[in-house]
Amino acid sequence: MHSSETIIEGRNAVLEALRSGKSVDKVFVLAGSNDGPLSAIVKEAKKHRETRVDFVKKERLDELSETGKHQGVIAYSAAYDYSEVSDILAAAREKNEDPFIFILDGIEDPHNLGAIIRTANLCGAHGVIIRMNRAVGLTATVAKASAGALNYTPVAKVTNISETIESLKKEGLWFVCGDMGGELMYRLNLKGPIGLVIGNEGSGVSRLVREKCDMTAAIPMKGDIDSLNASVAAGVLAYEIVRQRMS
Amino acid sequence: MHSSETIIEGRNAVLEALRSGKSVDKVFVLAGSNDGPLSAIVKEAKKHRETRVDFVKKERLDELSETGKHQGVIAYSAAYDYSEVSDILAAAREKNEDPFIFILDGIEDPHNLGAIIRTANLCGAHGVIIRMNRAVGLTATVAKASAGALNYTPVAKVTNISETIESLKKEGLWFVCGDMGGELMYRLNLKGPIGLVIGNEGSGVSRLVREKCDMTAAIPMKGDIDSLNASVAAGVLAYEIVRQRMS
Repeated sequence: MHSSETIIEGRNAVLEALRSGKSVDKVFVLAGSNDGPLSAIVKEAKKHRETRVDFVKKERLDELSETGKHQGVIAYSAAYDYSEVSDILAAAREKNEDPFIFILDGIEDPHNLGAIIRTANLCGAHGVIIRMNRAVGLTATVAKASAGALNYTPVAKVTNISETIESLKKEGLWFVCGDMGGELMYRLNLKGPIGLVIGNEGSGVSRLVREKCDMTAAIPMKGDIDSLNASVAAGVLAYEIVRQRMS
Repeated sequence: MHSSETIIEGRNAVLEALRSGKSVDKVFVLAGSNDGPLSAIVKEAKKHRETRVDFVKKERLDELSETGKHQGVIAYSAAYDYSEVSDILAAAREKNEDPFIFILDGIEDPHNLGAIIRTANLCGAHGVIIRMNRAVGLTATVAKASAGALNYTPVAKVTNISETIESLKKEGLWFVCGDMGGELMYRLNLKGPIGLVIGNEGSGVSRLVREKCDMTAAIPMKGDIDSLNASVAAGVLAYEIVRQRMS
């Protein structure tokens, strides 16, 4: 399922990439154009849930272009293909284990995302769910930082984290988010089918998503600064789940 | 104690920086020169334990130079000043706590070092010890990644990690290193005065250092790949120490 991250320029190339089923993260389209081929590309892109469409000025396209021949459209394909949430649940079923899923509510730094996918793999989680907007996708930097974990751990991209949590609750999962205002993690019962929600590097878990969670877990903090690095916090919380599952 | 990271070029400027007591990480000196002023700089640099001296060719100096006027010497000052190991022990004594020190055996990635200093601050460790060779120092990137932790958590730089461990053992510290071949971390007694040893991103803890440690702790690994990101592993191990100290 591995393909390399590429910049795709020009109308035919972008349309073909979208139609081939390749994972396309972003499409930049010339704003304000009523041009037929460009509209067809936008229509095709909107069929793909993992693809984000941004309308930009000509200057931005010129800046992004490597060939100088973008014809009003530039796309970025993912370095790895995305999975579906159902693939993650299937992986847990196959192993006969309670589902253990990481849900990332807006991780923006590719090194953090890579490190978190690496942790998810090693702590025995069945997959990682990321969101489409204001978050990094499966870029080449993420793949490298994941140290190979992307070859094993499925990553799904969703438009709405809250809705995904709602539908996973119907599958029997409980949700815990990491937040300083929560209960000390050691005091929570984190066994059973679980989704671990990790927030954005700067702003944490968004309010709407936090409200969907069954529990809020706090890591003990004795220091002077505000918060751990997001991938470190994810690791510490994930391993508290591992410890409870082992005991 | 904050100063900004700078490149310092030219004989007088480098000599002054060294004499002022500024933390200088590295000095690049023209190789094979018998020149008096350069010898005086090398002599001065060797008085500072945190300063590494490298003899390089003229081409390398030309490459590094920003001004084009290096006069055979270029130095890099640290973004933050280093502390002494004794300062770290004093910090523990002041708080009336058992010493808890991170010892980093060759962390090379500045984002990892910054994230680890951040973790050290938040988990209540009294300081971080790094090594001089084949390791990143307190650069501006490290300072940024530490999210302010460098303002609170002392970092000492030593030439020989094994010797530092030996001398800290005389102060009553026990040492645990993170290594996959060790005992499951939950089964170890990690209470009391402790040094947590974290190895290099690629090669882990070096043999000589591992042999000095009293315990080797393994994080449970259920996945397909080899190892966690170094800063995540440091966080998971540090928080196992926190958990044991709290219970």
